Amino acid sequence: MAVGTVLITGGTGYIGSFTTLALLDAGYDVVIVDSLYNSSKVAIDRIELLAGRRPDFYQVDITDEKALDEVFAKHPAIDSVIHFAALKAVGESSIIPLEYYRVNVGGSIALLQSMTRHNVTNIVFSSSATVYGDATRFPDMIPIPEHCPIGPTNTYGRTKSMIEDVITDYVNAQRTNLEKEGKPFQQWNGALLRYFNPCGAHPSGIMGEDPQGVPFNLLPLLGQVATGQREKLLVFGEDYPSRDGTAIRDYIHVVDLARGHLEALNYLRSKQPGVKAWNLGSGRGSTVFEIIKAFSNVVGRDLKYEVVARRPGDVLDLTANPKLANEELQWKTELTMEKACEDLWRWVSNNPQGYRQEPPAELLAAIKKA
Amino acid sequence: MAVGTVLITGGTGYIGSFTTLALLDAGYDVVIVDSLYNSSKVAIDRIELLAGRRPDFYQVDITDEKALDEVFAKHPAIDSVIHFAALKAVGESSIIPLEYYRVNVGGSIALLQSMTRHNVTNIVFSSSATVYGDATRFPDMIPIPEHCPIGPTNTYGRTKSMIEDVITDYVNAQRTNLEKEGKPFQQWNGALLRYFNPCGAHPSGIMGEDPQGVPFNLLPLLGQVATGQREKLLVFGEDYPSRDGTAIRDYIHVVDLARGHLEALNYLRSKQPGVKAWNLGSGRGSTVFEIIKAFSNVVGRDLKYEVVARRPGDVLDLTANPKLANEELQWKTELTMEKACEDLWRWVSNNPQGYRQEPPAELLAAIKKA
Repeated sequence: MAVGTVLITGGTGYIGSFTTLALLDAGYDVVIVDSLYNSSKVAIDRIELLAGRRPDFYQVDITDEKALDEVFAKHPAIDSVIHFAALKAVGESSIIPLEYYRVNVGGSIALLQSMTRHNVTNIVFSSSATVYGDATRFPDMIPIPEHCPIGPTNTYGRTKSMIEDVITDYVNAQRTNLEKEGKPFQQWNGALLRYFNPCGAHPSGIMGEDPQGVPFNLLPLLGQVATGQREKLLVFGEDYPSRDGTAIRDYIHVVDLARGHLEALNYLRSKQPGVKAWNLGSGRGSTVFEIIKAFSNVVGRDLKYEVVARRPGDVLDLTANPKLANEELQWKTELTMEKACEDLWRWVSNNPQGYRQEPPAELLAAIKKA
Repeated sequence: MAVGTVLITGGTGYIGSFTTLALLDAGYDVVIVDSLYNSSKVAIDRIELLAGRRPDFYQVDITDEKALDEVFAKHPAIDSVIHFAALKAVGESSIIPLEYYRVNVGGSIALLQSMTRHNVTNIVFSSSATVYGDATRFPDMIPIPEHCPIGPTNTYGRTKSMIEDVITDYVNAQRTNLEKEGKPFQQWNGALLRYFNPCGAHPSGIMGEDPQGVPFNLLPLLGQVATGQREKLLVFGEDYPSRDGTAIRDYIHVVDLARGHLEALNYLRSKQPGVKAWNLGSGRGSTVFEIIKAFSNVVGRDLKYEVVARRPGDVLDLTANPKLANEELQWKTELTMEKACEDLWRWVSNNPQGYRQEPPAELLAAIKKA
């Protein structure tokens, strides 16, 4: 008997696939909807290999309310949703913003409407630390707590912040409306999970991030330098007032992050708190040079990089204050940035083509044995 | 030959109908789309009576992209849109927020997509001073300038602020993208018009606000007290630190407001400035007691009111700094709050049932004569 049944939108993506795995391991049944626009169905095979059972899967666009309705109708056991499905490239969001608003905001509205029709009333939302924008505007807000003022500086971040508002207003309204009608109002709950810099891969070496096109995060780019797919890493600025001049970010292992989703879901289902925002970060900041060094140590050789000018919009320090999640969710990161580097290297060195190639037989054999 | 052809969404509503009239009077052709969800088609007859010509009309829901496409296809002369279509009740927005986000934000996205497909690249957007929220947080921001930080305190205001962001990001992206392609990028323009408290009616006495259900603004409520449809007016708080203890608002005659839309449209079409936000207000604040007095003077007798507690969320002072619109649009209010009271009284006393009754024959005769 499953603990519960959860719909995961965007469940074949990077964080979605790890969260699916965490939920299966915790005894949940999982139904995935994903458009496969920026992910691969192969992720489901890997999840099955690791979890020993397979999530249900439907190729559905998040803006397609009818298709969502059909999935909910087919799986009446679903009581909660973890919502990842979204366009997620910051740079692209400034080039095709209307598409970002349509898919991310419009898709979330469609999802909430469909959930309502099927009486599914818990939503865990994949937000982002991007909603804080330049938190260094507020000197007493580093590391960043959840009450730091919101102020995203790009379209991607604005879509996340808008969806937070939509979920907050809707959950609050539903609770108020149901309470007035004398109905059980506590059932409507929302978790807004603001991630810092997700990184790393599964320790088995068969599941990880599979960026389409040019990656836009530091560690996947370093991974490509290490595998020879990229000549060198560009470091944007070494004149920040940090310990070595490069910018500070809070790197969180994707396995920890996935567990954070599980804990948030459990909290919503057991405590029924209404809407809550939680930072998911380690509380530890690493500079770009520290990441390069840690990853080079794992690879066993120096990796080529070049320092260029700061990128406009980049800020000195984005480190989470994860105290609220530590205390309320009884969750904290357990895996270090160094461990994320190890796992990432195992993933990219064994699967330089990501999910477009079979992993080495010895890795698969090790999983079957375990 | 028309000056240009403009699509007006929500053109049968209060401000939409007056703006249609102002555009027709200025030589524009007007095509209206409106769902008639909260307005009456009779408004079009009144516009025709006053303007001497009739706008085209289609009953279309703003979220229906296909229907919008058909209207644009049928009227290739349309080069600009004035976008009013939205749900607009602040109180209701906290009860059914998802519907507000779907119609207001989703509808605006649908409209921009349809505009893009038909190469219609100027949009004047009906925003609201509500986007500022409690501007009294910033003591040096009264009267409120456009650079006052945005911070809406209710769902209705959040939909307006989100649409401002969507339009801003999209117009900026389209200009950047087109410029890179060597194409004329200046064609994409957006005006974000932040109104203060629209009021008043047409001086002819045959066109005005026709609220469905209970009105939620001071002057329409006072109008109902004057016509005997309502026993008394509730005044929310007389303990504000104002000259008489009641809250201060900036009342703007709807005829001035409509002219503001015309001037913003002309500015976009001639100056092609990209995205601009303008306050449309008088710069003159009136207290609730001053409004009651002014309207009572027009009616010729005292109107009953009762002072009750402040409403949560209400603020002391929302007065516009209209300098930017005064200078850039060469627009300023010409009609006083007292004139708005006169015109409102002519409207409600002659049409206590709004558009659900024919206006007195002498008013119609006066129009035909003029």
